[in-house]
Amino acid sequence: MTARHEEIAEELRRAIDREEYAVGALLPAETDLAARFGVSRGTVRQAVLTLTAEGLIGSRQGARRVVLAGRHSQSFGELRSFAQWAAAMGRSATGTVVSSRYRPATGRDAMRLQVEPDTPVLHVLRVRGLDGDPVLLERTVYADWIAPAVERIEPDCPSVTQRLLDDTGLVFAHGEHLIDAVAAGARDAEHLGVRRTSPLLRVRRLTTTREGRPVEWSDDRYRPDAVSFSVRNSIGSNPLARRTGPALA
Amino acid sequence: MTARHEEIAEELRRAIDREEYAVGALLPAETDLAARFGVSRGTVRQAVLTLTAEGLIGSRQGARRVVLAGRHSQSFGELRSFAQWAAAMGRSATGTVVSSRYRPATGRDAMRLQVEPDTPVLHVLRVRGLDGDPVLLERTVYADWIAPAVERIEPDCPSVTQRLLDDTGLVFAHGEHLIDAVAAGARDAEHLGVRRTSPLLRVRRLTTTREGRPVEWSDDRYRPDAVSFSVRNSIGSNPLARRTGPALA
Repeated sequence: MTARHEEIAEELRRAIDREEYAVGALLPAETDLAARFGVSRGTVRQAVLTLTAEGLIGSRQGARRVVLAGRHSQSFGELRSFAQWAAAMGRSATGTVVSSRYRPATGRDAMRLQVEPDTPVLHVLRVRGLDGDPVLLERTVYADWIAPAVERIEPDCPSVTQRLLDDTGLVFAHGEHLIDAVAAGARDAEHLGVRRTSPLLRVRRLTTTREGRPVEWSDDRYRPDAVSFSVRNSIGSNPLARRTGPALA
Repeated sequence: MTARHEEIAEELRRAIDREEYAVGALLPAETDLAARFGVSRGTVRQAVLTLTAEGLIGSRQGARRVVLAGRHSQSFGELRSFAQWAAAMGRSATGTVVSSRYRPATGRDAMRLQVEPDTPVLHVLRVRGLDGDPVLLERTVYADWIAPAVERIEPDCPSVTQRLLDDTGLVFAHGEHLIDAVAAGARDAEHLGVRRTSPLLRVRRLTTTREGRPVEWSDDRYRPDAVSFSVRNSIGSNPLARRTGPALA
Protein backbone atom coordinates (compact mmCIF):
# COMPACT_ATOMS: atom_id res chain seq x y z
CA MET A 1 0.00 0.00 0.00
CA THR A 2 1.22 3.47 -0.83
CA ALA A 3 1.01 6.21 1.78
CA ARG A 4 -0.97 9.30 0.82
CA HIS A 5 2.12 11.53 0.91
CA GLU A 6 3.85 9.18 -1.55
CA GLU A 7 0.88 9.47 -3.90
CA ILE A 8 1.07 13.24 -3.66
CA ALA A 9 4.82 13.17 -4.27
CA GLU A 10 4.17 11.15 -7.43
CA GLU A 11 1.40 13.59 -8.51
CA LEU A 12 3.85 16.45 -8.10
CA ARG A 13 6.58 14.63 -10.06
CA ARG A 14 4.12 14.07 -12.90
CA ALA A 15 3.01 17.70 -12.82
CA ILE A 16 6.67 18.71 -13.10
CA ASP A 17 7.19 16.20 -15.92
CA ARG A 18 4.31 17.63 -17.94
CA GLU A 19 5.61 21.13 -17.13
CA GLU A 20 2.50 22.23 -15.29
CA TYR A 21 5.19 23.40 -12.87
CA ALA A 22 8.09 24.24 -15.16
CA VAL A 23 11.77 24.21 -14.22
CA GLY A 24 12.63 27.58 -12.72
CA ALA A 25 9.01 28.33 -11.72
CA LEU A 26 7.71 28.32 -8.16
CA LEU A 27 5.52 25.57 -6.78
CA PRO A 28 2.28 26.75 -5.13
CA ALA A 29 2.50 27.28 -1.38
CA GLU A 30 1.93 24.21 0.81
CA THR A 31 -1.48 25.49 1.95
CA ASP A 32 -2.59 25.79 -1.70
CA LEU A 33 -1.27 22.33 -2.53
CA ALA A 34 -3.08 20.92 0.51
CA ALA A 35 -6.34 22.46 -0.75
CA ARG A 36 -5.75 21.16 -4.27
CA PHE A 37 -5.15 17.58 -3.15
CA GLY A 38 -7.67 17.69 -0.30
CA VAL A 39 -5.14 16.61 2.32
CA SER A 40 -3.56 18.09 5.41
CA ARG A 41 -0.66 20.48 5.17
CA GLY A 42 1.50 17.91 7.00
CA THR A 43 0.87 15.39 4.24
CA VAL A 44 1.81 17.92 1.57
CA ARG A 45 4.93 18.83 3.51
CA GLN A 46 6.06 15.19 3.60
CA ALA A 47 5.62 14.95 -0.17
CA VAL A 48 7.47 18.20 -0.70
CA LEU A 49 10.37 17.05 1.51
CA THR A 50 10.62 13.87 -0.56
CA LEU A 51 10.95 15.89 -3.76
CA THR A 52 13.45 18.19 -2.08
CA ALA A 53 15.60 15.21 -1.09
CA GLU A 54 15.38 14.00 -4.68
CA GLY A 55 16.70 17.34 -5.89
CA LEU A 56 13.60 18.12 -7.94
CA ILE A 57 12.69 21.20 -5.95
CA GLY A 58 14.74 23.65 -3.93
CA SER A 59 14.53 24.96 -0.39
CA ARG A 60 11.89 27.48 0.61
CA GLN A 61 11.88 30.97 -0.79
CA GLY A 62 9.26 32.56 1.40
CA ALA A 63 6.20 30.30 1.30
CA ARG A 64 7.12 28.64 -1.99
CA ARG A 65 9.77 26.45 -3.55
CA VAL A 66 11.42 26.63 -6.94
CA VAL A 67 11.28 23.68 -9.35
CA LEU A 68 14.92 22.72 -9.98
CA ALA A 69 14.62 19.98 -12.52
CA GLY A 70 12.26 17.59 -14.20
CA ARG A 71 12.86 13.98 -13.40
CA HIS A 72 14.13 13.28 -16.88
CA SER A 73 15.13 10.04 -15.27
CA GLN A 74 15.10 6.64 -16.83
CA SER A 75 13.52 3.63 -15.27
CA PHE A 76 15.84 0.92 -14.04
CA GLY A 77 14.63 -1.26 -16.91
CA GLU A 78 15.39 1.39 -19.49
CA LEU A 79 18.91 1.80 -18.19
CA ARG A 80 19.46 -1.94 -17.82
CA SER A 81 18.09 -2.83 -21.23
CA PHE A 82 19.76 -1.32 -24.25
CA ALA A 83 16.71 -2.25 -26.35
CA GLN A 84 14.18 -0.63 -23.98
CA TRP A 85 16.32 2.49 -23.89
CA ALA A 86 16.54 2.74 -27.67
CA ALA A 87 12.79 2.12 -27.99
CA ALA A 88 12.04 4.96 -25.53
CA MET A 89 13.96 7.30 -27.86
CA GLY A 90 12.21 5.96 -30.95
CA ARG A 91 15.44 4.44 -32.25
CA SER A 92 16.10 0.90 -33.28
CA ALA A 93 18.42 -1.33 -31.29
CA THR A 94 20.39 -4.18 -32.73
CA GLY A 95 22.37 -6.84 -30.95
CA THR A 96 24.76 -9.35 -32.41
CA VAL A 97 26.52 -12.07 -30.49
CA VAL A 98 30.13 -12.34 -31.64
CA SER A 99 31.04 -15.25 -29.39
CA SER A 100 29.46 -17.23 -26.59
CA ARG A 101 31.27 -19.86 -24.62
CA TYR A 102 31.59 -21.44 -21.21
CA ARG A 103 34.74 -21.01 -19.18
CA PRO A 104 35.51 -22.11 -15.63
CA ALA A 105 34.84 -19.26 -13.19
CA THR A 106 38.02 -17.53 -12.09
CA GLY A 107 38.34 -16.46 -8.47
CA ARG A 108 37.12 -13.03 -9.49
CA ASP A 109 34.11 -14.39 -11.43
CA ALA A 110 33.28 -16.62 -8.47
CA MET A 111 33.36 -13.73 -6.03
CA ARG A 112 31.29 -11.42 -8.20
CA LEU A 113 28.71 -13.96 -9.26
CA GLN A 114 28.65 -15.86 -5.94
CA VAL A 115 29.35 -19.22 -7.55
CA GLU A 116 32.00 -21.81 -6.72
CA PRO A 117 35.38 -21.34 -8.43
CA ASP A 118 35.64 -23.41 -11.64
CA THR A 119 31.85 -23.50 -12.09
CA PRO A 120 31.26 -23.06 -15.84
CA VAL A 121 30.06 -19.50 -16.47
CA LEU A 122 28.95 -18.17 -19.84
CA HIS A 123 31.07 -15.47 -21.52
CA VAL A 124 29.20 -13.56 -24.21
CA LEU A 125 30.72 -10.90 -26.47
CA ARG A 126 27.93 -8.84 -28.01
CA VAL A 127 27.87 -5.73 -30.22
CA ARG A 128 24.95 -3.34 -29.76
CA GLY A 129 23.95 -0.85 -32.41
CA LEU A 130 21.70 2.20 -32.63
CA ASP A 131 19.99 2.56 -36.00
CA GLY A 132 22.63 0.26 -37.44
CA ASP A 133 25.72 1.98 -35.99
CA PRO A 134 27.76 -0.03 -33.51
CA VAL A 135 27.98 1.97 -30.26
CA LEU A 136 28.57 -0.58 -27.50
CA LEU A 137 30.66 -3.71 -27.06
CA GLU A 138 29.50 -5.86 -24.13
CA ARG A 139 31.66 -8.52 -22.48
CA THR A 140 29.17 -10.21 -20.20
CA VAL A 141 29.65 -13.14 -17.85
CA TYR A 142 26.45 -14.93 -16.80
CA ALA A 143 26.09 -17.05 -13.66
CA ASP A 144 25.71 -20.78 -14.25
CA TRP A 145 22.03 -20.90 -13.23
CA ILE A 146 20.93 -18.40 -15.88
CA ALA A 147 23.46 -19.35 -18.59
CA PRO A 148 21.35 -22.09 -20.26
CA ALA A 149 18.49 -19.63 -20.78
CA VAL A 150 20.92 -17.09 -22.27
CA GLU A 151 22.40 -19.72 -24.58
CA ARG A 152 18.97 -20.57 -25.99
CA ILE A 153 18.42 -16.97 -27.18
CA GLU A 154 19.06 -16.38 -30.89
CA PRO A 155 22.30 -14.42 -31.53
CA ASP A 156 20.59 -11.36 -33.03
CA CYS A 157 17.87 -10.99 -30.41
CA PRO A 158 17.46 -7.23 -29.82
CA SER A 159 16.39 -7.54 -26.18
CA VAL A 160 17.99 -10.23 -24.05
CA THR A 161 16.41 -8.67 -20.96
CA GLN A 162 12.90 -9.06 -22.35
CA ARG A 163 13.60 -12.62 -23.51
CA LEU A 164 14.93 -13.65 -20.11
CA LEU A 165 11.84 -12.17 -18.48
CA ASP A 166 9.51 -13.94 -20.94
CA ASP A 167 11.35 -17.27 -20.81
CA THR A 168 12.35 -17.50 -17.16
CA GLY A 169 10.55 -14.72 -15.25
CA LEU A 170 13.93 -13.23 -14.35
CA VAL A 171 13.71 -9.62 -13.12
CA PHE A 172 16.88 -7.57 -12.86
CA ALA A 173 16.46 -5.41 -9.77
CA HIS A 174 19.73 -3.92 -8.54
CA GLY A 175 22.84 -2.67 -10.27
CA GLU A 176 26.29 -1.51 -9.25
CA HIS A 177 28.22 0.51 -11.84
CA LEU A 178 31.85 1.52 -12.03
CA ILE A 179 32.49 4.13 -14.69
CA ASP A 180 35.83 5.12 -16.19
CA ALA A 181 37.59 5.57 -19.53
CA VAL A 182 39.81 3.16 -21.40
CA ALA A 183 41.79 3.09 -24.65
CA ALA A 184 40.22 0.91 -27.36
CA GLY A 185 41.96 -2.42 -27.79
CA ALA A 186 42.19 -4.31 -31.08
CA ARG A 187 38.89 -6.10 -30.52
CA ASP A 188 37.08 -2.92 -29.43
CA ALA A 189 38.40 -1.13 -32.51
CA GLU A 190 37.30 -3.93 -34.81
CA HIS A 191 33.74 -4.17 -33.52
CA LEU A 192 33.06 -0.51 -32.79
CA GLY A 193 34.63 0.88 -35.94
CA VAL A 194 37.04 3.16 -34.08
CA ARG A 195 40.81 3.46 -34.11
CA ARG A 196 42.88 1.48 -31.66
CA THR A 197 43.74 3.49 -28.52
CA SER A 198 40.86 5.92 -29.11
CA PRO A 199 39.01 6.76 -25.86
CA LEU A 200 36.03 4.63 -24.85
CA LEU A 201 33.60 5.13 -21.99
CA ARG A 202 33.70 1.97 -19.88
CA VAL A 203 30.92 0.88 -17.52
CA ARG A 204 31.57 -2.24 -15.49
CA ARG A 205 28.44 -3.44 -13.80
CA LEU A 206 27.05 -6.19 -11.64
CA THR A 207 23.31 -6.86 -11.79
CA THR A 208 21.35 -8.83 -9.23
CA THR A 209 17.81 -10.11 -8.71
CA ARG A 210 15.39 -8.64 -6.17
CA GLU A 211 16.82 -11.06 -3.64
CA GLY A 212 20.34 -9.84 -4.30
CA ARG A 213 21.47 -12.87 -6.29
CA PRO A 214 24.08 -11.89 -8.90
CA VAL A 215 22.94 -12.63 -12.45
CA GLU A 216 25.70 -11.18 -14.60
CA TRP A 217 28.64 -8.92 -14.59
CA SER A 218 29.73 -7.04 -17.62
CA ASP A 219 32.44 -4.83 -19.06
CA ASP A 220 30.57 -2.48 -21.43
CA ARG A 221 32.52 -0.14 -23.70
CA TYR A 222 30.70 2.73 -25.37
CA ARG A 223 31.71 5.01 -28.21
CA PRO A 224 31.76 8.37 -26.40
CA ASP A 225 30.68 10.23 -29.51
CA ALA A 226 27.44 8.24 -29.35
CA VAL A 227 26.66 7.66 -25.67
CA SER A 228 27.20 9.38 -22.33
CA PHE A 229 25.72 8.95 -18.85
CA SER A 230 24.11 11.50 -16.59
CA VAL A 231 23.58 11.51 -12.85
CA ARG A 232 21.84 14.07 -10.67
CA ASN A 233 22.64 14.41 -7.00
CA SER A 234 21.78 16.73 -4.15
CA ILE A 235 22.72 17.46 -0.61
CA GLY A 236 19.90 15.17 0.51
CA SER A 237 20.67 12.30 -1.80
CA ASN A 238 23.97 11.45 -3.46
CA PRO A 239 24.10 8.22 -5.46
CA LEU A 240 27.44 9.04 -7.11
CA ALA A 241 30.82 8.27 -5.57
CA ARG A 242 34.32 9.11 -6.70
CA ARG A 243 36.81 6.25 -6.29
CA THR A 244 40.55 6.05 -6.44
CA GLY A 245 41.85 3.67 -9.04
CA PRO A 246 40.04 1.78 -11.75
CA ALA A 247 39.70 -1.50 -9.80
CA LEU A 248 36.34 -3.24 -9.46
CA ALA A 249 35.94 -4.98 -6.11
CA MET B 1 11.31 17.03 12.33
CA THR B 2 12.20 13.52 11.33
CA ALA B 3 9.51 10.86 11.31
CA ARG B 4 10.17 7.82 13.51
CA HIS B 5 10.40 5.49 10.51
CA GLU B 6 13.09 7.73 9.01
CA GLU B 7 15.06 7.53 12.24
CA ILE B 8 14.78 3.75 12.16
CA ALA B 9 15.84 3.68 8.51
CA GLU B 10 18.94 5.67 9.47
CA GLU B 11 19.62 3.33 12.43
CA LEU B 12 19.47 0.38 10.05
CA ARG B 13 21.77 2.08 7.53
CA ARG B 14 24.30 2.69 10.29
CA ALA B 15 24.02 -0.89 11.52
CA ILE B 16 24.74 -2.05 7.96
CA ASP B 17 27.65 0.41 7.70
CA ARG B 18 29.27 -0.93 10.85
CA GLU B 19 28.58 -4.47 9.59
CA GLU B 20 26.36 -5.43 12.49
CA TYR B 21 24.26 -6.67 9.56
CA ALA B 22 26.88 -7.66 6.99
CA VAL B 23 26.39 -7.75 3.24
CA GLY B 24 24.93 -11.13 2.32
CA ALA B 25 23.49 -11.73 5.81
CA LEU B 26 19.79 -11.63 6.67
CA LEU B 27 18.21 -8.78 8.59
CA PRO B 28 16.19 -9.81 11.64
CA ALA B 29 12.46 -10.30 10.98
CA GLU B 30 10.28 -7.19 11.18
CA THR B 31 8.73 -8.32 14.48
CA ASP B 32 12.20 -8.62 16.01
CA LEU B 33 13.24 -5.22 14.68
CA ALA B 34 10.02 -3.71 16.04
CA ALA B 35 10.85 -5.13 19.48
CA ARG B 36 14.44 -3.90 19.28
CA PHE B 37 13.46 -0.33 18.42
CA GLY B 38 10.32 -0.29 20.58
CA VAL B 39 8.05 0.71 17.72
CA SER B 40 5.14 -0.80 15.83
CA ARG B 41 5.69 -3.29 13.07
CA GLY B 42 4.17 -0.79 10.60
CA THR B 43 6.88 1.72 11.46
CA VAL B 44 9.60 -0.88 10.96
CA ARG B 45 8.04 -1.87 7.67
CA GLN B 46 8.15 1.71 6.38
CA ALA B 47 11.85 1.93 7.28
CA VAL B 48 12.53 -1.41 5.62
CA LEU B 49 10.71 -0.33 2.44
CA THR B 50 12.85 2.81 2.33
CA LEU B 51 16.04 0.73 2.46
CA THR B 52 14.64 -1.64 -0.16
CA ALA B 53 13.97 1.28 -2.51
CA GLU B 54 17.54 2.45 -1.90
CA GLY B 55 18.83 -0.96 -2.94
CA LEU B 56 20.47 -1.64 0.42
CA ILE B 57 18.33 -4.66 1.18
CA GLY B 58 16.50 -7.16 -1.00
CA SER B 59 12.94 -8.40 -1.15
CA ARG B 60 11.59 -10.81 1.44
CA GLN B 61 12.93 -14.32 1.74
CA GLY B 62 10.40 -15.77 4.14
CA ALA B 63 10.19 -13.41 7.09
CA ARG B 64 13.60 -11.84 6.51
CA ARG B 65 15.50 -9.76 4.00
CA VAL B 66 19.07 -10.05 2.79
CA VAL B 67 21.50 -7.14 3.09
CA LEU B 68 22.57 -6.33 -0.46
CA ALA B 69 25.10 -3.61 0.05
CA GLY B 70 26.52 -1.19 2.53
CA ARG B 71 25.88 2.43 1.73
CA HIS B 72 29.55 3.00 0.96
CA SER B 73 28.15 6.22 -0.33
CA GLN B 74 29.77 9.59 -0.21
CA SER B 75 28.10 12.70 1.05
CA PHE B 76 27.26 15.34 -1.49
CA GLY B 77 30.01 17.48 0.02
CA GLU B 78 32.59 14.75 -0.31
CA LEU B 79 31.75 14.25 -3.95
CA ARG B 80 31.57 17.98 -4.67
CA SER B 81 34.80 18.82 -2.89
CA PHE B 82 37.96 17.16 -4.09
CA ALA B 83 39.68 18.15 -0.83
CA GLN B 84 36.94 16.68 1.41
CA TRP B 85 37.04 13.51 -0.62
CA ALA B 86 40.82 13.15 -0.35
CA ALA B 87 40.67 13.88 3.39
CA ALA B 88 38.05 11.14 3.90
CA MET B 89 40.53 8.67 2.38
CA GLY B 90 43.40 9.97 4.45
CA ARG B 91 45.16 11.36 1.39
CA SER B 92 46.38 14.84 0.78
CA ALA B 93 44.77 17.04 -1.86
CA THR B 94 46.54 19.77 -3.69
CA GLY B 95 45.11 22.41 -5.96
CA THR B 96 46.98 24.81 -8.22
CA VAL B 97 45.37 27.52 -10.29
CA VAL B 98 47.00 27.64 -13.74
CA SER B 99 44.97 30.56 -15.01
CA SER B 100 42.04 32.68 -13.87
CA ARG B 101 40.41 35.31 -16.00
CA TYR B 102 37.12 36.96 -16.80
CA ARG B 103 35.50 36.48 -20.18
CA PRO B 104 32.11 37.65 -21.44
CA ALA B 105 29.51 34.88 -21.01
CA THR B 106 28.79 33.08 -24.25
CA GLY B 107 25.20 32.10 -25.01
CA ARG B 108 25.96 28.68 -23.56
CA ASP B 109 27.54 30.09 -20.37
CA ALA B 110 24.56 32.42 -20.00
CA MET B 111 22.05 29.61 -20.31
CA ARG B 112 23.86 27.32 -17.90
CA LEU B 113 24.66 29.93 -15.28
CA GLN B 114 21.43 31.92 -15.71
CA VAL B 115 23.21 35.20 -16.31
CA GLU B 116 22.81 37.71 -19.13
CA PRO B 117 24.94 37.08 -22.24
CA ASP B 118 28.23 39.05 -22.13
CA THR B 119 28.17 39.26 -18.33
CA PRO B 120 31.80 38.73 -17.27
CA VAL B 121 32.15 35.21 -15.85
CA LEU B 122 35.31 33.81 -14.29
CA HIS B 123 37.17 31.01 -16.07
CA VAL B 124 39.54 29.08 -13.82
CA LEU B 125 41.90 26.30 -14.94
CA ARG B 126 43.02 24.30 -11.92
CA VAL B 127 45.09 21.14 -11.47
CA ARG B 128 44.18 18.87 -8.58
CA GLY B 129 46.58 16.34 -7.16
CA LEU B 130 46.40 13.37 -4.82
CA ASP B 131 49.53 12.95 -2.67
CA GLY B 132 51.36 15.14 -5.17
CA ASP B 133 50.29 13.34 -8.37
CA PRO B 134 48.16 15.36 -10.77
CA VAL B 135 44.91 13.44 -11.36
CA LEU B 136 42.31 16.04 -12.39
CA LEU B 137 42.25 19.11 -14.60
CA GLU B 138 39.26 21.38 -13.90
CA ARG B 139 38.00 24.01 -16.32
CA THR B 140 35.46 25.84 -14.19
CA VAL B 141 33.28 28.83 -15.07
CA TYR B 142 31.88 30.75 -12.10
CA ALA B 143 28.78 32.96 -12.20
CA ASP B 144 29.43 36.68 -11.86
CA TRP B 145 27.94 36.97 -8.37
CA ILE B 146 30.36 34.44 -6.85
CA ALA B 147 33.39 35.23 -9.04
CA PRO B 148 34.87 38.00 -6.81
CA ALA B 149 34.92 35.61 -3.83
CA VAL B 150 36.64 32.95 -5.97
CA GLU B 151 39.21 35.47 -7.21
CA ARG B 152 40.19 36.38 -3.64
CA ILE B 153 41.19 32.78 -2.85
CA GLU B 154 44.92 32.07 -2.99
CA PRO B 155 45.93 29.98 -6.04
CA ASP B 156 47.11 26.94 -4.06
CA CYS B 157 44.13 26.74 -1.70
CA PRO B 158 43.39 23.01 -1.26
CA SER B 159 39.63 23.46 -0.71
CA VAL B 160 37.82 26.14 -2.64
CA THR B 161 34.49 24.73 -1.43
CA GLN B 162 35.44 25.20 2.21
CA ARG B 163 36.80 28.69 1.58
CA LEU B 164 33.63 29.79 -0.21
CA LEU B 165 31.56 28.46 2.68
CA ASP B 166 33.76 30.25 5.24
CA ASP B 167 33.97 33.50 3.31
CA THR B 168 30.47 33.80 1.86
CA GLY B 169 28.26 31.14 3.45
CA LEU B 170 27.76 29.55 0.04
CA VAL B 171 26.42 25.99 0.20
CA PHE B 172 26.51 23.83 -2.90
CA ALA B 173 23.32 21.77 -2.82
CA HIS B 174 22.47 20.20 -6.19
CA GLY B 175 24.55 18.81 -9.01
CA GLU B 176 23.96 17.55 -12.53
CA HIS B 177 26.72 15.41 -14.04
CA LEU B 178 27.35 14.26 -17.58
CA ILE B 179 29.99 11.56 -17.80
CA ASP B 180 31.88 10.42 -20.88
CA ALA B 181 35.39 9.83 -22.18
CA VAL B 182 37.63 12.11 -24.19
CA ALA B 183 41.10 12.02 -25.74
CA ALA B 184 43.65 14.16 -23.89
CA GLY B 185 44.40 17.43 -25.65
CA ALA B 186 47.76 19.21 -25.51
CA ARG B 187 46.82 21.14 -22.37
CA ASP B 188 45.41 18.04 -20.63
CA ALA B 189 48.58 16.12 -21.47
CA GLU B 190 50.81 18.88 -20.17
CA HIS B 191 49.06 19.29 -16.81
CA LEU B 192 48.14 15.68 -16.12
CA GLY B 193 51.43 14.15 -17.24
CA VAL B 194 49.82 11.83 -19.78
CA ARG B 195 50.35 11.41 -23.51
CA ARG B 196 48.26 13.38 -25.96
CA THR B 197 45.17 11.42 -27.14
CA SER B 198 45.30 9.08 -24.14
CA PRO B 199 41.81 8.40 -22.72
CA LEU B 200 40.51 10.67 -19.96
CA LEU B 201 37.33 10.33 -17.92
CA ARG B 202 35.35 13.54 -18.37
CA VAL B 203 32.68 14.79 -15.95
CA ARG B 204 30.85 17.92 -16.97
CA ARG B 205 28.81 19.29 -14.11
CA LEU B 206 26.58 22.13 -13.09
CA THR B 207 26.26 22.93 -9.39
CA THR B 208 23.53 25.03 -7.84
CA THR B 209 22.60 26.44 -4.44
CA ARG B 210 19.72 25.14 -2.33
CA GLU B 211 17.47 27.57 -4.12
CA GLY B 212 18.54 26.23 -7.50
CA ARG B 213 20.74 29.15 -8.46
CA PRO B 214 23.64 28.02 -10.68
CA VAL B 215 27.04 28.69 -9.11
CA GLU B 216 29.48 27.08 -11.53
CA TRP B 217 29.78 24.73 -14.38
CA SER B 218 32.88 22.72 -14.99
CA ASP B 219 34.59 20.38 -17.42
CA ASP B 220 36.62 18.04 -15.20
CA ARG B 221 39.05 15.57 -16.76
CA TYR B 222 40.38 12.73 -14.67
CA ARG B 223 43.25 10.34 -15.23
CA PRO B 224 41.36 7.04 -15.42
CA ASP B 225 44.26 5.12 -13.89
CA ALA B 226 43.73 7.23 -10.76
CA VAL B 227 39.99 7.93 -10.47
CA SER B 228 36.70 6.28 -11.40
CA PHE B 229 33.07 6.86 -10.41
CA SER B 230 30.54 4.42 -9.03
CA VAL B 231 26.76 4.54 -9.01
CA ARG B 232 24.29 2.10 -7.50
CA ASN B 233 20.73 1.84 -8.76
CA SER B 234 17.74 -0.37 -8.22
CA ILE B 235 14.31 -1.04 -9.59
CA GLY B 236 12.91 1.36 -6.98
CA SER B 237 15.40 4.16 -7.54
CA ASN B 238 17.51 4.85 -10.62
CA PRO B 239 19.59 8.01 -10.57
CA LEU B 240 21.65 7.05 -13.63
CA ALA B 241 20.58 7.75 -17.21
CA ARG B 242 22.13 6.78 -20.52
CA ARG B 243 22.16 9.58 -23.10
CA THR B 244 22.81 9.64 -26.80
CA GLY B 245 25.62 11.91 -27.83
CA PRO B 246 28.15 13.77 -25.74
CA ALA B 247 26.29 17.11 -25.74
CA LEU B 248 25.56 18.96 -22.52
CA ALA B 249 22.28 20.86 -22.60
